[in-house]
Amino acid sequence: MIKKLTSFKEAEKKVFSKIDSYVKNKIKIVPLIDAINKVSAEEIIANENLPYFNKAAMDGYAVIAEDTYGASYTNPIILELSNDVEHGKAKKVFTGDPIPDNTNAVIMKEFCREENGLLEIYKTVHPNENVAKIGEDVKKGDVIINKHEKITPYHINLLASLAIKEIAIYDLKFGIIATGDELEDLENANLEKLKRTKKIVNSNSYMLYALIKDLGFDGKIYGIVRDDKDMLKEMIKKALKENDFIITTGGTSVGDRDLTVKAIKELGNIILHGVNIRPGKPFGLGEVNNKLIFLLSGYPVASAVQFELFIYRYFLKRKSVVLPLKRSLASELGRVDFVRVKIDSGVEPIRISGSGVITSLVKCDGYILIPENVEGYEKGEMVEVFIL
Amino acid sequence: MIKKLTSFKEAEKKVFSKIDSYVKNKIKIVPLIDAINKVSAEEIIANENLPYFNKAAMDGYAVIAEDTYGASYTNPIILELSNDVEHGKAKKVFTGDPIPDNTNAVIMKEFCREENGLLEIYKTVHPNENVAKIGEDVKKGDVIINKHEKITPYHINLLASLAIKEIAIYDLKFGIIATGDELEDLENANLEKLKRTKKIVNSNSYMLYALIKDLGFDGKIYGIVRDDKDMLKEMIKKALKENDFIITTGGTSVGDRDLTVKAIKELGNIILHGVNIRPGKPFGLGEVNNKLIFLLSGYPVASAVQFELFIYRYFLKRKSVVLPLKRSLASELGRVDFVRVKIDSGVEPIRISGSGVITSLVKCDGYILIPENVEGYEKGEMVEVFIL
Repeated sequence: MIKKLTSFKEAEKKVFSKIDSYVKNKIKIVPLIDAINKVSAEEIIANENLPYFNKAAMDGYAVIAEDTYGASYTNPIILELSNDVEHGKAKKVFTGDPIPDNTNAVIMKEFCREENGLLEIYKTVHPNENVAKIGEDVKKGDVIINKHEKITPYHINLLASLAIKEIAIYDLKFGIIATGDELEDLENANLEKLKRTKKIVNSNSYMLYALIKDLGFDGKIYGIVRDDKDMLKEMIKKALKENDFIITTGGTSVGDRDLTVKAIKELGNIILHGVNIRPGKPFGLGEVNNKLIFLLSGYPVASAVQFELFIYRYFLKRKSVVLPLKRSLASELGRVDFVRVKIDSGVEPIRISGSGVITSLVKCDGYILIPENVEGYEKGEMVEVFIL
Repeated sequence: MIKKLTSFKEAEKKVFSKIDSYVKNKIKIVPLIDAINKVSAEEIIANENLPYFNKAAMDGYAVIAEDTYGASYTNPIILELSNDVEHGKAKKVFTGDPIPDNTNAVIMKEFCREENGLLEIYKTVHPNENVAKIGEDVKKGDVIINKHEKITPYHINLLASLAIKEIAIYDLKFGIIATGDELEDLENANLEKLKRTKKIVNSNSYMLYALIKDLGFDGKIYGIVRDDKDMLKEMIKKALKENDFIITTGGTSVGDRDLTVKAIKELGNIILHGVNIRPGKPFGLGEVNNKLIFLLSGYPVASAVQFELFIYRYFLKRKSVVLPLKRSLASELGRVDFVRVKIDSGVEPIRISGSGVITSLVKCDGYILIPENVEGYEKGEMVEVFIL
């Protein structure tokens, strides 16, 4: 039985500080190529400007801008082509080429004519014109990637450009245990039989495994444990040995079937059980042998939301945008509501008939969180949408 | 030399139809668990309703709603607890449990009191109240996932729930060849030496590899080929044998260094070279031995944009949202502009000083495409933002 609900803020603080103390030693350094789409475990500061030399931003000729002043089609200026540029000279360059140190502009080839080692120029260029200046992309000292930011292909380009070859990521493994007599393994699942026996597939384990992979971590599915406390305890002990974290799905709802909570109490401690959020209220956190166990619901949407709020968001904040609400939204003081939304010239909450509706997570663009100190939002209020 | 630019629409059509004919036989069927975040190569239609039986949406008691009419705290109705429900009876259920066939509602346990096999009910429930009805999540015949949709953890849950164990994905391998005397391998890169020699790291190959991985495909980096046509031809021949597609980066800019184009012409055909887009104009497509070669720029942003428009978008359309522009944007008739934007109560184009600024791709929320038949957008116009 959940006695009293913990507020979302307090729950988040407890969970995140527990994860914090666990993961700080679970870091590995990997080559860039193995870090794609993973969570950066470090902040990286630019060790140099990028570019680190002045470059041509167009195909053309590097010149001293002042040499071109007054040039026109009727009054062209003539420069000598050369590899070393001084006044009166120009050097042919392609986009991306370094320009000679004493040049300060590139005149596009469209405004020149080359003949016999000489260059006719028909247009004035100004200092810095068509030049990609030192530090234009990244300044030495800039943050290239933050701790807990997803390492995208574009980050990889920046890091490689600065000759940074490795990056720290988290080295974590999650074990997933599903509980419930109503569950059937996917491998053995036959739809006609499932309908007849009113059983359901252990689909949550697959979703949770996918979410763990999406964060860039390793996962292992331990299958289904029947509603039997001793069998569950044995499975938890086994999974604890092989993983950094355990996730259970099912067996946490309020009522007579709180087997997971009971099993963990006998093995260690329940740190938290029951959070004032909707959906996802029966979320729990346990600790056994200094390892953490996340107790998620058996209901698909509830478990997806609990994973998002207490695991995914610890490691990775979703990209978010701030936009006006298209209709008002009611909530309850003290409770945090997770509201799936579409973005369509504003934020449109999705009308959902039931919390089992996983389709709503497929079809939404993201979600908003109505904080606990707010009774709801008015139409037109600006809200932060986290893009899924 | 690029003689005449192809319009974006025509280029896209040519490229996509070439990819189409190549990839239609490059499909493999994999277990769900191996398909996470990959591109679905098939449309999957729901073979059954989900849920496929009526379920309790709350902890409580399954009842025949009509039996509760008129119940109140002052005038409770008493039902008998039983596993088989008929009029006058109720069955205890937890969230997610099937409810007996002839029941049509669940009364929440908060409004009941159980004693000695009897249930006191203090509230009327209506038919379908607190019931997750058959087909509430997915209706038989609904599309669960479209061809060329990313297979998310939530799709995996839906597919597993319907006992669908496998899914078709594309089985593709991309070889990446970088060209240019100015490039240095990442492994050997030393920043001080790079500054002194004015060389740059072959960072594009890593970014392109990451983008290929992000699409769920295999990639192989073939390193750097110096500006030598014969060496390039040899490398292309080798990579063609080992891959489905080749991507080259560098060597496509207009001018004296069109080595890649020349090499491919000697090995096969150039289908396309030069597209009226900005950035990314020097994009090309070649065909050798019925395999495709994508010719991307050496400039980081240009190559990222070319990959996005001609490869990524073929396989996967980004999630998009339609929002008003916060300031006007100029373009050129006939040209498609790729504009990086932030979303902040509307769409804010990012002011960029140069096309080498890869940071802009890290910092933007997404991009808009200004079509070729439009000279620009006015402030306030609704535009489609593709979320990166």
